[in-house]
Amino acid sequence: MEDRYSLELKPIGVIHSPFKNTGKAPYQGYKSEEISQIEVFKEFEEGLKDIEGFSHIIVIYWFHKSQGYHLLVKTPWDDSLHGLFTTRSPRRPCPLGLTVAELVVREKNILKVKGLDAIDGTPLLDIKPCIPSTDERLGVKLGWFEGRLGREKS
Amino acid sequence: MEDRYSLELKPIGVIHSPFKNTGKAPYQGYKSEEISQIEVFKEFEEGLKDIEGFSHIIVIYWFHKSQGYHLLVKTPWDDSLHGLFTTRSPRRPCPLGLTVAELVVREKNILKVKGLDAIDGTPLLDIKPCIPSTDERLGVKLGWFEGRLGREKS
Repeated sequence: MEDRYSLELKPIGVIHSPFKNTGKAPYQGYKSEEISQIEVFKEFEEGLKDIEGFSHIIVIYWFHKSQGYHLLVKTPWDDSLHGLFTTRSPRRPCPLGLTVAELVVREKNILKVKGLDAIDGTPLLDIKPCIPSTDERLGVKLGWFEGRLGREKS
Repeated sequence: MEDRYSLELKPIGVIHSPFKNTGKAPYQGYKSEEISQIEVFKEFEEGLKDIEGFSHIIVIYWFHKSQGYHLLVKTPWDDSLHGLFTTRSPRRPCPLGLTVAELVVREKNILKVKGLDAIDGTPLLDIKPCIPSTDERLGVKLGWFEGRLGREKS
């Protein structure tokens, strides 16, 4: 089937992070004050023109330490099995990570950001501007997450 | 360099959309009332367990009609050249699309959604739950987009 061809991606950069392995990354990285450095490879630097004006960016990356997946998963929030696509587990058929990060400062091809939970060495795939009118919704219902956020087990 | 290896993805589904080609897809699909059908391939259906409880999902897909890219691009919003990574252009080094869509109804492995601007036949890569406390931010600054949204040229 045409739709099931493999698709090929080449990273546009790499994330340098204080989180050195998966056990160290926070479940909800957006709460973290730690600074990560997104290195955009030099050949893509021109694509960052004017990014300084944006306070938040959407960072898409490859969960490079993730291996395999299960379609039903346990999470830190309860003991039930949940459908993988209702979770943010890094173990997914397409291991794509997504975080909205705060852009603290740009230094040439380096973006220093807060709130990024990717681990050190994570391949960077894309950066998009965060646009609330496009990316945010009112009245969002959270399914099984309802009432559980912030109450994860350690 | 290790970080520049190619990474391989296999789609988990396909998007059936009323937008038959790129010229027909809206610039800001979230405003659209059109219904798209996300077909998750049968072997991944179990991963949708309990997704009905979620009102909005993050859909990640492959811009399969996108060819090549420029690091500086013109947009429908003004005549200036902007850094590619400050735009949502589909022509990107990693042609990954991202939309927050409203989940209208699930029918087995089919998700009927509103607000998805992907064109018909788009390969589906991932579905994640939309969690405002994780994905949304206050006081977002929009850089060159400021004051221009909703004023795109036709």
